Amino acid sequence: MISKIEIKHINALKVKKYRNKYSEFIAEGDKIIKELIEEGLQVVNIFTINENSILQNKNIKVVSDAELSMISALTKHHGSLAVFRMQKKEMQIANDEWILLLDDIQDPGNMGTIIRTCDWFGIKKIICSDGCVDVYNPKVVQASMASIGRVQVMEADLKEIIQEYKMSVYGAILNGKNYNEQSFKEKGFILIGNEGHGINNDLETLITYRITIPKKGRAESLNAAIATALILDKLSI
Amino acid sequence: MISKIEIKHINALKVKKYRNKYSEFIAEGDKIIKELIEEGLQVVNIFTINENSILQNKNIKVVSDAELSMISALTKHHGSLAVFRMQKKEMQIANDEWILLLDDIQDPGNMGTIIRTCDWFGIKKIICSDGCVDVYNPKVVQASMASIGRVQVMEADLKEIIQEYKMSVYGAILNGKNYNEQSFKEKGFILIGNEGHGINNDLETLITYRITIPKKGRAESLNAAIATALILDKLSI
Repeated sequence: MISKIEIKHINALKVKKYRNKYSEFIAEGDKIIKELIEEGLQVVNIFTINENSILQNKNIKVVSDAELSMISALTKHHGSLAVFRMQKKEMQIANDEWILLLDDIQDPGNMGTIIRTCDWFGIKKIICSDGCVDVYNPKVVQASMASIGRVQVMEADLKEIIQEYKMSVYGAILNGKNYNEQSFKEKGFILIGNEGHGINNDLETLITYRITIPKKGRAESLNAAIATALILDKLSI
Repeated sequence: MISKIEIKHINALKVKKYRNKYSEFIAEGDKIIKELIEEGLQVVNIFTINENSILQNKNIKVVSDAELSMISALTKHHGSLAVFRMQKKEMQIANDEWILLLDDIQDPGNMGTIIRTCDWFGIKKIICSDGCVDVYNPKVVQASMASIGRVQVMEADLKEIIQEYKMSVYGAILNGKNYNEQSFKEKGFILIGNEGHGINNDLETLITYRITIPKKGRAESLNAAIATALILDKLSI
């Protein structure tokens, strides 16, 4: 049994304003919930339709299928939903590491996939412009496949970050140097632009290495998460 | 003004059964519609909220915002929607070309992104297992960014295809050879598995080269579209 107050609270967490107010976010499905717990994230409570759930927690509650549907952010619920406390760690930036800068990435699926891809390639830090979709958006959390618990993400003014930490900026643009001919020996920022209009002008002028993924076919552009992955694959971590 | 019959017909095209029955599918937004027309796809009709639409067609109809919302498959319509006739070309398979085989790719966003990525890398043919999401699904069409008009896609039994055309099969699995050490000189099939469980067993036994994208971090797996892109980038077209 889930109370009306709980339903209202969890549904509020689908909105960024309330996620920030309560410092909480939701994740769905046993696999992702289990991984986030293993990463040390603090669980507020868990709702599951399974009386023999693999999830072990003192705040677990068995609910009906209809009740879970009322709080799920998915078209069809995944059998369980957990409320987690947001991790608020200060990001320390060393001057010799790869950091991904995301300029106004707006699609939650792209954002989640980018976080997951960073986790695969060992990139541990992402800085998002304030025009990016919130990383605690339920669709981002699901697409990240629990990588949100392993990759540090913060929001900041990218221009200030680039100017403060004097690392090189590798910017993905459409008419730069073939990225296969670019040396990535010197660590720094990888800058990826918005799905529709690319990197904003005020940031484009700060790019050190203008790089391009060469096109062999006819598509006008690549999906932002795909472009990110192709570039991250070139880096030595 | 749009008629009730038109609304009913277009909404039916959101379902695969009716798309196949009528041999029609929908695409939304001026940019994608324009590109598909330029690719030679046959337009059945176009609905737009813009009286000065850039789309030129004898079957164009100006509708209200509310009317377009009634037929759009998107959360928020993109200003225009077109009904296209499906292209039914026989796919000719030469014995010396790259062909992408998709085994039960189910996410429409992944499918559309894969088609778009093929178009970028010059891969012109995709063969889908019957467990794949329909490529004329509105979400696939949107994510493909009109590449659906430039890449040939057909559905077939992948096992029969591999056995009939005796090309090598490069299969993306989790514990194969580092793909950076694999030669891709010999053209053939690139085989990509389902988002959750990878390549089905009956196909896995047919793989010639078992390849893996090396992991440097901690994510359990890569998104299927990302894995596809990373492999396609290695091929010479």
